[in-house]
Amino acid sequence: MTKKMVEKITNMDEDFAQWYTDVVTKAELVDYSSVRGSMIIRPYGYAIWERIKDALDTQIKETGHENVYMPLLIPESLLQKEKDHIEGFAPEVAWVTHGGDEKLAERLCIRPTSEVLFAEHYKNIIHSYRDLPKLYNQWANVIRWEKTTRPFLRTLEFLWQEGHTCHETEEDAHEETVKMLEVYAEICERLLAIPVVKGRKTEKEKFAGAKYTYTIESLMHDGKALQSGTSHNLGTGFAESFGIEFLNREGKLQPVHQTSWGFTTRIIGAMIMVHGDDKGLVLPPEVAPIQVLIVPIAQHKEGVLDAAYDLHHSLKSSVRIAIDASDKKPGWKFNESEMKGIPLRLEIGPKDIEEKKVVLVRRDTGEKIQVENEKIEAEISRLLKEIQENLYNKALGHRISKTAAAVTMDEFTGNLTKNGGFINAMWCGKQSCEDQIKEQTQATSRCIPFEQEQLSEVCVYCSEPADKMVVWAKAY
Amino acid sequence: MTKKMVEKITNMDEDFAQWYTDVVTKAELVDYSSVRGSMIIRPYGYAIWERIKDALDTQIKETGHENVYMPLLIPESLLQKEKDHIEGFAPEVAWVTHGGDEKLAERLCIRPTSEVLFAEHYKNIIHSYRDLPKLYNQWANVIRWEKTTRPFLRTLEFLWQEGHTCHETEEDAHEETVKMLEVYAEICERLLAIPVVKGRKTEKEKFAGAKYTYTIESLMHDGKALQSGTSHNLGTGFAESFGIEFLNREGKLQPVHQTSWGFTTRIIGAMIMVHGDDKGLVLPPEVAPIQVLIVPIAQHKEGVLDAAYDLHHSLKSSVRIAIDASDKKPGWKFNESEMKGIPLRLEIGPKDIEEKKVVLVRRDTGEKIQVENEKIEAEISRLLKEIQENLYNKALGHRISKTAAAVTMDEFTGNLTKNGGFINAMWCGKQSCEDQIKEQTQATSRCIPFEQEQLSEVCVYCSEPADKMVVWAKAY
Repeated sequence: MTKKMVEKITNMDEDFAQWYTDVVTKAELVDYSSVRGSMIIRPYGYAIWERIKDALDTQIKETGHENVYMPLLIPESLLQKEKDHIEGFAPEVAWVTHGGDEKLAERLCIRPTSEVLFAEHYKNIIHSYRDLPKLYNQWANVIRWEKTTRPFLRTLEFLWQEGHTCHETEEDAHEETVKMLEVYAEICERLLAIPVVKGRKTEKEKFAGAKYTYTIESLMHDGKALQSGTSHNLGTGFAESFGIEFLNREGKLQPVHQTSWGFTTRIIGAMIMVHGDDKGLVLPPEVAPIQVLIVPIAQHKEGVLDAAYDLHHSLKSSVRIAIDASDKKPGWKFNESEMKGIPLRLEIGPKDIEEKKVVLVRRDTGEKIQVENEKIEAEISRLLKEIQENLYNKALGHRISKTAAAVTMDEFTGNLTKNGGFINAMWCGKQSCEDQIKEQTQATSRCIPFEQEQLSEVCVYCSEPADKMVVWAKAY
Repeated sequence: MTKKMVEKITNMDEDFAQWYTDVVTKAELVDYSSVRGSMIIRPYGYAIWERIKDALDTQIKETGHENVYMPLLIPESLLQKEKDHIEGFAPEVAWVTHGGDEKLAERLCIRPTSEVLFAEHYKNIIHSYRDLPKLYNQWANVIRWEKTTRPFLRTLEFLWQEGHTCHETEEDAHEETVKMLEVYAEICERLLAIPVVKGRKTEKEKFAGAKYTYTIESLMHDGKALQSGTSHNLGTGFAESFGIEFLNREGKLQPVHQTSWGFTTRIIGAMIMVHGDDKGLVLPPEVAPIQVLIVPIAQHKEGVLDAAYDLHHSLKSSVRIAIDASDKKPGWKFNESEMKGIPLRLEIGPKDIEEKKVVLVRRDTGEKIQVENEKIEAEISRLLKEIQENLYNKALGHRISKTAAAVTMDEFTGNLTKNGGFINAMWCGKQSCEDQIKEQTQATSRCIPFEQEQLSEVCVYCSEPADKMVVWAKAY
């Protein structure tokens, strides 16, 4: 870590975008490269992704899915087979036109998502109801040609998993769509301490080629929403375009019912913007690559470093722990560990050794706790759980304080201007109202939440009868 | 599994190439797609890769490396910064020329390898000897525009890890290069039961941009060699081209010493061609996704399926075990499990249940072993170890029987024609001899092995003084 690392970062309430950039670079999560819109994910950032990936991969396998790997490149003619899909994605794909010195007869795009590749494969391997369900997933990189980019939140290339499944019946596909949304919600809430709202996207906001899209939406510190994971019921659209048919139990040919669902490195951006503060990153213990950092005090004095290393040795099997024995001053080490969002700092100096205790400092509250030597392991375990819960509860409290109901457009714009956040309002179902609301307020429909409330009888925009409550927000 | 699966495959000694294609498709490792030269890695193939990846990733981390992720796309100007490197790779890269509807001002290539991206990043983050060593690794997909392709062995796109490190001194870089070659050799020998020859590539065969390249070479069933992993000492070439300099302990600016090393999905092709037989795949137990398959005999009879599931339940925590309770006939199930290379088959039928025993059948030898119920777990564990060792020893025996020494070109060509395999022969060090040998025999220099023998005093080709023994072979 260089000196730059502990320079002051921008105050988050002054300039949230600059604060974000400061944090991702100074906490050494990413670096920029000469590739426009792409990022280098540095060891500390990648270790966070590895923890998310491991947890999600375990869930994906426990729910019966198998991992596969599809090609990176998609021939243009294959991408064009499903017309809604190509319309949605064509404007944002990167095209390969030459291999070595040769011009290609057909352009290949770099996958923006892999529905068409899975569809082609499924057509080859599915023949009978006995072949169903097919529950596949892949971990991969994808490219979408974005104009404006920001690390994690919107980059040309990102990492993700994309699940693609085939089922006998509409109900099976529906169940799968819901099940995987729940898996994503669990990862957000339990691992990342990010509370989410689950719901369905409007027709306008659904995935290109889907029958319907479910989403989890989370709220950032600055009151803007972030789509955190989506799960699509594709119906039989791709199956019909690609001819993925099977002999059903009645001996008749019919198209399969499909789903797809994805979760990306974007969630790291959400985690930063939900929990971070003016000192930098704040990492939930469950996902933190280092949960406890030992900082020796007056480490040149006899016995201090030995005691610190002994502690490290005795604790490393029960907790992800590191030691900073560099020749930097303790104050610098404190700042660095705060910038990196390490949940607990453990201070040990000559006086502590004499008194057979250490000091634990919480990153989330700043609280200092003296702990006797024999209680250290238990106390660390207790505190990590408490920090995890506290971060979730704090984020939930923030979301609740930034969620308002609006029955008129005056209330809508008033609340949005004053407070940002989520606006709950009734909607008639017409896209024209959705478009108008977006034009007037810059808020988009985030979802039609599963948990509905009848706030009024009429649409907040056109006053015609409405039976759906929609969550609206400005969004990343 | 469909009926196709247990159709006869081509005899390996009649047509080894067709045998290989039959095995990779019928064992359901891969499928083809409409993307020329790319493969779909199916669940069974990907599960093998996941096991290799996990084992190697653990080793990479235990030797002090950290994972990162670099962009997929490289601007043409960046690729051109190191002249040997661009010369080597330019003919085989895929070029992106358009993003969405826009023509790009500068072409971007899809990474064929990431030296230049790491170099650019290292220039940003390395300033002092205190920043060294930097020991980074990434797991990624790369593309090389190959004309002729075969699943795993040579595909446009493949998966790999690429390590990239920076060091203070030449010795440190040398040590790292050797250390990672040893890690690769361990993975091949212990996990995949593939014996390897370790050595150094000739100047002609070294990596484009490297000072020197170390390699592990293995021998396939058909007597052809396969390069199985390489580790490059890059010297200061990239550091000088990119300006990666640091203040050394004497306070002077100097370029870093670098290494890079890679291991790919190609190794799965090696594993198939080293161990496979006319019944299909033969998987070493350490890497097999399923180590034991339970096949119930007369499963319609009362108690058989219950007993089979009980066994599965009681064994699944100690071994990777599956059960085939489908309505296919046992003979079909036997054939399928042989095609898929599952190390052990466990048969249980009414008579076995009565006699409180089961039958275990080894995939590698076909041997049938009756085992009493209380000894099953121990016997499986013992047999899996024995199979692992047997496969390694068999492969080593095969390599020894296919390795010959030659002191004249007559011996060289005679042995190569009669027996294939490795030819050990002395070499003077001139590239012209290397070129001539290749032209006359189609054998290339595989490596200058670490274990040398002075077979004669002169070059096998030109009869001038020679002090290096080279391993030659026709190669994949």
